[in-house]
Amino acid sequence: MRFELGCRMQFSSNFDVPVILMLRPRSGYRQWIIQETYDLQPFAPVTEYTDGYGNLCQRLIVPAGEFQLQVTAQAETLLELELDKTASFIPIEFLPDAILQFLLPSRYCESDKVYDLASEIVANLEPGYAQAEAIRRWIHNNIQYEYGTSNASTSALNVIQSRQGVCRDFAHLGIALCRSLNIPARMVVGYLHGLKPMDQHAWFEAYIGHRWCTFDATQTEHSEERIVIAYGRDAADVALVTQFGPLQLNEMQVWIDAL
Amino acid sequence: MRFELGCRMQFSSNFDVPVILMLRPRSGYRQWIIQETYDLQPFAPVTEYTDGYGNLCQRLIVPAGEFQLQVTAQAETLLELELDKTASFIPIEFLPDAILQFLLPSRYCESDKVYDLASEIVANLEPGYAQAEAIRRWIHNNIQYEYGTSNASTSALNVIQSRQGVCRDFAHLGIALCRSLNIPARMVVGYLHGLKPMDQHAWFEAYIGHRWCTFDATQTEHSEERIVIAYGRDAADVALVTQFGPLQLNEMQVWIDAL
Amino acid sequence: MRFELGCRMQFSSNFDVPVILMLRPRSGYRQWIIQETYDLQPFAPVTEYTDGYGNLCQRLIVPAGEFQLQVTAQAETLLELELDKTASFIPIEFLPDAILQFLLPSRYCESDKVYDLASEIVANLEPGYAQAEAIRRWIHNNIQYEYGTSNASTSALNVIQSRQGVCRDFAHLGIALCRSLNIPARMVVGYLHGLKPMDQHAWFEAYIGHRWCTFDATQTEHSEERIVIAYGRDAADVALVTQFGPLQLNEMQVWIDAL
Amino acid sequence: MRFELGCRMQFSSNFDVPVILMLRPRSGYRQWIIQETYDLQPFAPVTEYTDGYGNLCQRLIVPAGEFQLQVTAQAETLLELELDKTASFIPIEFLPDAILQFLLPSRYCESDKVYDLASEIVANLEPGYAQAEAIRRWIHNNIQYEYGTSNASTSALNVIQSRQGVCRDFAHLGIALCRSLNIPARMVVGYLHGLKPMDQHAWFEAYIGHRWCTFDATQTEHSEERIVIAYGRDAADVALVTQFGPLQLNEMQVWIDAL
Repeated sequence: MRFELGCRMQFSSNFDVPVILMLRPRSGYRQWIIQETYDLQPFAPVTEYTDGYGNLCQRLIVPAGEFQLQVTAQAETLLELELDKTASFIPIEFLPDAILQFLLPSRYCESDKVYDLASEIVANLEPGYAQAEAIRRWIHNNIQYEYGTSNASTSALNVIQSRQGVCRDFAHLGIALCRSLNIPARMVVGYLHGLKPMDQHAWFEAYIGHRWCTFDATQTEHSEERIVIAYGRDAADVALVTQFGPLQLNEMQVWIDAL
Repeated sequence: MRFELGCRMQFSSNFDVPVILMLRPRSGYRQWIIQETYDLQPFAPVTEYTDGYGNLCQRLIVPAGEFQLQVTAQAETLLELELDKTASFIPIEFLPDAILQFLLPSRYCESDKVYDLASEIVANLEPGYAQAEAIRRWIHNNIQYEYGTSNASTSALNVIQSRQGVCRDFAHLGIALCRSLNIPARMVVGYLHGLKPMDQHAWFEAYIGHRWCTFDATQTEHSEERIVIAYGRDAADVALVTQFGPLQLNEMQVWIDAL
Repeated sequence: MRFELGCRMQFSSNFDVPVILMLRPRSGYRQWIIQETYDLQPFAPVTEYTDGYGNLCQRLIVPAGEFQLQVTAQAETLLELELDKTASFIPIEFLPDAILQFLLPSRYCESDKVYDLASEIVANLEPGYAQAEAIRRWIHNNIQYEYGTSNASTSALNVIQSRQGVCRDFAHLGIALCRSLNIPARMVVGYLHGLKPMDQHAWFEAYIGHRWCTFDATQTEHSEERIVIAYGRDAADVALVTQFGPLQLNEMQVWIDAL
Repeated sequence: MRFELGCRMQFSSNFDVPVILMLRPRSGYRQWIIQETYDLQPFAPVTEYTDGYGNLCQRLIVPAGEFQLQVTAQAETLLELELDKTASFIPIEFLPDAILQFLLPSRYCESDKVYDLASEIVANLEPGYAQAEAIRRWIHNNIQYEYGTSNASTSALNVIQSRQGVCRDFAHLGIALCRSLNIPARMVVGYLHGLKPMDQHAWFEAYIGHRWCTFDATQTEHSEERIVIAYGRDAADVALVTQFGPLQLNEMQVWIDAL
């Protein structure tokens, strides 16, 4: 399946502000980037590196004044993954070394504190897919999706208390609950086709049946019509824009269309 | 300078429990391991891998029953580092790519929430060493070292409220405050010669003047008489023992002696 | 400086043939990819990974029949590097760990066998830039550029004997000679603006004065008007197409224009 | 199975000579280091890093004069691997990304030039274990083990011509032949229990049936009584001592005993 997608951001600042951007989707296992553009107006010297999770990160100094960036891509999703509802829990001792880090608590996912809730949600279920799906559904049914109820410091624990949040909060809670049950889980940011209103999106993946499976607690139906930008432990690792100074985002547009 | 050091732990459990250990100090830039032993009683199959921070991690299943492990080493510290009190702040744009991750908030270091306190502490100081040292001293003077006042879930924010903690809490707070000022900071666990009472220890390093500098808010005087076991973003990355099940630590001894 | 560049290849085969491609230039320290396309006709499932040198590698199975691929990019070179003709030799003990591998002999660069020739070429020169430049000039003056005189198995030693070769042979010889003098050297493949006749190109870099410096023994004048596709120890690491079966390359076009 | 092993080297030199050592066996999938010593006489500042293959490498400057180093270890081999003589060839498209590099030709393994010989050796055999074992046996039967017939520059092609060599030459030939058949193969150096005369040893591994399998063309019988020091593409990657200057090795002793 082929998509056209993009993101445009307009900034202004009184100062030169160093930033790290994570806006370039990369070709990987599930997607192939056929075409892309990454435009900076005005042009500013920029370099790129790969972080510890394999994401492509762009470093630059956003110059004082008005600044606009636009990233577009045409991408093919490679896998028409069927849901494997029988995918099973992988015992710790059989997890690949590189997966182990996704069992640990992280800034927004206090997995060390949510075991009781997780146990309740998955009571009597088979370890594995059924547990992660129960977690996803519980969040979908019990947390209210509401803009403006959370901010960049909101963590899974906060969400459990407030019962409100946006896509990144839903993902953090899903990750924390999975990890508390020794299911490795990670944050994903990217584009979801059909999302309303359209925006950059976040969801989570759980490592079950020896592969990463997609879970999106904001949606009623399962959909693989997604293009990934970045993976990480939680939102701290995958911020689209990490800014080190006062930079004003004036406008942002996001789009994804099927071809 | 040469040290003999070691650590012995006795566990018991009713179940086989998978664990990840981080107990083998490795030879690196500042230290050389001349001799070491890593003994498991009873012996259990164990493998080792290097994590994303370069730490040597041991994976095994601790068998049900009594289990003892002992790690000893003879190590030479290679650098008699003088304090460079003039080491300066490195602007974001000149930080090496691999250092950038140590600017981000992490599980126990909510650097996104402590900027006001950090600003107050470093008011009027030159960016760089003087700031990190002021943070260290402020913690030393304002947080009370007290066993039992914190636990595995205590974060820097909690410590700011309670004004109490142990070495890992002191380190987390130092890290969070440094990062809020855009000074990269990381957690270190290891052995400190002369520590009283003797135990495994934790401190932090700040990246200043293009090298990692040692800061230990639990101590009055600066000392480089340390052997490092592991580095990470915070305690989540460098737990000596990460256990995935009910494992009882019955006894632990730690020692380090100068030769 | 901004360039438009691209490469088109037409293959035919009686079999499905697995290939590894290295055709996607990536944004890095010296160049920024503003726009790119990577088109496969017919489309075939393809994944991408980063190799040990940081290159983006594409894996796919080229289907039996006719197959065409075209990669285009618009790229900005970020540095107008001045030649630093005084850049000095870095003693082994001060080389970064990751650079050391570029001192070792490799498939096409038998640095263990060319020390005598290298010594002769650089006699009486200061270690560093002057040596690498003398090597470059010696190759330019003593090896004849001639299509069809070498093949995929030709190594630096072969070139010393035949005194003939193409760009990859010139690069291999430069690398072997530099390494024999303990100057780290690596292979680069990419686009050179103004190359006649236009084609994919290869040259080498030597690590001097704590940075990688460009040397191109096929050219009379130094030019930084280049876009890099990949780095490696020698041609074995950076083949544009590594094919595991009988795949016929029928046609190839390469272009690079200044904007 | 538990072993005690070690290596002692005595050097002399008129100069300070930088070296890279690869002498510390590390705990990994197949072996666990219970105890080790790494002694330098006189002591010289030394650091350690992990290379791209996961090997622990030691860097130091051997001081002018007499210098001795001794590395000892007590190690447990973890796997009593049965030979899986049915392990099958893994098609290129199913090889993990990180394995692909072991298909490429390297300094001492000109796999691009030995396909004809390899085809002859494995004629009519099933792809996979049977092929690699036939290659091992062919080398054992057709190449004469003879000290002094090869040197640090001898490659697989040279061995095919001379029909003579030592363990590293046998390994290089095995690797080249396997790779020419699209079987990933790598060099291993370490200790072999029962080797006569005792010395540091080299052999190869082929990636078959989704794991690395041991092949040793110098031995008549298969044995897993081995402790690995390092892995690499060929001898260029895994030299026990890489020296950058005139350093005289006066004496070397190697031992390994079963406990």
